[in-house]
Amino acid sequence: VPNYRLLVEYDGTAFEGWQLQPGGARTVQGALEAALRPVAGGAVRVHGAGRTDAGVHALGQVANAHLARSLPPEVMVRALNAALPRDVAVRAAALVPEHFHARRDARRKRYLYRLWTAPARSPLRDRISLWVPQPLDLAAMRAAAAALCGTHDFASFRAAGSAAPTSVRTLWGLEIAGEAGGEVSLAFEGDGFLRHMVRNLVGTLLEVGRGRRRADSIQAVLAAATRAAAGPTAPARGLVLVAVHYDLDFPSRSGGLEAGEG
Amino acid sequence: VPNYRLLVEYDGTAFEGWQLQPGGARTVQGALEAALRPVAGGAVRVHGAGRTDAGVHALGQVANAHLARSLPPEVMVRALNAALPRDVAVRAAALVPEHFHARRDARRKRYLYRLWTAPARSPLRDRISLWVPQPLDLAAMRAAAAALCGTHDFASFRAAGSAAPTSVRTLWGLEIAGEAGGEVSLAFEGDGFLRHMVRNLVGTLLEVGRGRRRADSIQAVLAAATRAAAGPTAPARGLVLVAVHYDLDFPSRSGGLEAGEG
Repeated sequence: VPNYRLLVEYDGTAFEGWQLQPGGARTVQGALEAALRPVAGGAVRVHGAGRTDAGVHALGQVANAHLARSLPPEVMVRALNAALPRDVAVRAAALVPEHFHARRDARRKRYLYRLWTAPARSPLRDRISLWVPQPLDLAAMRAAAAALCGTHDFASFRAAGSAAPTSVRTLWGLEIAGEAGGEVSLAFEGDGFLRHMVRNLVGTLLEVGRGRRRADSIQAVLAAATRAAAGPTAPARGLVLVAVHYDLDFPSRSGGLEAGEG
Repeated sequence: VPNYRLLVEYDGTAFEGWQLQPGGARTVQGALEAALRPVAGGAVRVHGAGRTDAGVHALGQVANAHLARSLPPEVMVRALNAALPRDVAVRAAALVPEHFHARRDARRKRYLYRLWTAPARSPLRDRISLWVPQPLDLAAMRAAAAALCGTHDFASFRAAGSAAPTSVRTLWGLEIAGEAGGEVSLAFEGDGFLRHMVRNLVGTLLEVGRGRRRADSIQAVLAAATRAAAGPTAPARGLVLVAVHYDLDFPSRSGGLEAGEG
């Protein structure tokens, strides 16, 4: 059975998240499965690398789907994008080995969280960033970010009720770019992220940036291993799943994944 | 009577343009006048530098309004932004001389038109750019752009029914940045623009970029001085009014316009 890998971009504002839900909520997975049905000639299950929450965006979500028939990836991209609503699109498709699974095989993910730190809010940035009217102490935030990098038990940053068997994760990088008073972005790269982990990290770093929490308290927050020790969950609107990486670059039968990337 | 200059940003997607319309259409001017009423303690008329069309955005629209009472600009910015809908905001306010008029005194305007030129559309760029799936010949577009710069009769690029007394304008600059296959932006700077002029220039340049019109035909298009000689009107979604410039930098009584800019 041909297995296709899809590179998916979406504006999460009007979606109830990635994952299919009972009751017909509008989800990205649901939109993709509906668009794939006529292309594949039957019902299709789509597996996404990351189950993004309602309001979270993606530039480089990765999904895979087994189709009953084989199609040139370029034809599939065109057919899917013609059928999908405006706020979701497939950037590229590729045939991959039958055993490839977008979520289980993911080795590394990159998320970006955007802030707009000017005194007045910015309507043109409203859907994709969080407005923070206060000036932020970026040096203090960077010191706190450095303490978060590495392999830690991130239990303090995990959503209540999260079912992951372990909360140990490796954060390879947390870069804070931009300047106080303008656009600031926080880039997270890690082997995997617990539910709400990025947004809880952002909420905690914002407390540091506002002077409400000391940068050197991060070790204690991690050691507490309880959600109450960390800051609040930052809103979904600022978060984008930028990329998902895999061990191998799967060769495809007609054009690699990268061929179609913008 | 205190006269205030406002620097206004909006996402034009859900507005029926800048200008107040009979019948209660949702316009930016209407939203600003409604938000100013309680602040000013009475009805207020807002004058905008550019009457942007439905769907056109602004990062730096300039407006002025005479208010019956005087308020510190920072207080006005906060009060207006709290009252305005999410898709419009005042970035800064300043007290200016009573005779200042945002439209009549404007000397120079800068517009940006954004294209997304990849094979697949981009949902996160959908509201603010035009998707052009074909590869574009940017060198040909730049040659055509050079022929458009200078003082010309732009009658071929003026919307039918436009009432401006003359169609002679000076285009000081038309820069095309970016790369084929990705984001491409066209920056227009001139002393003033006729109705639909920027969008008609973009539509014509796109024909050049697609090889449907020769770059060296631009002189003939200008000379024809008839709308039929030029290309189609590009969609509003890609257009942003970036800045409006005036002869003087008006000093304000409490903080310049630039103080509050992001």
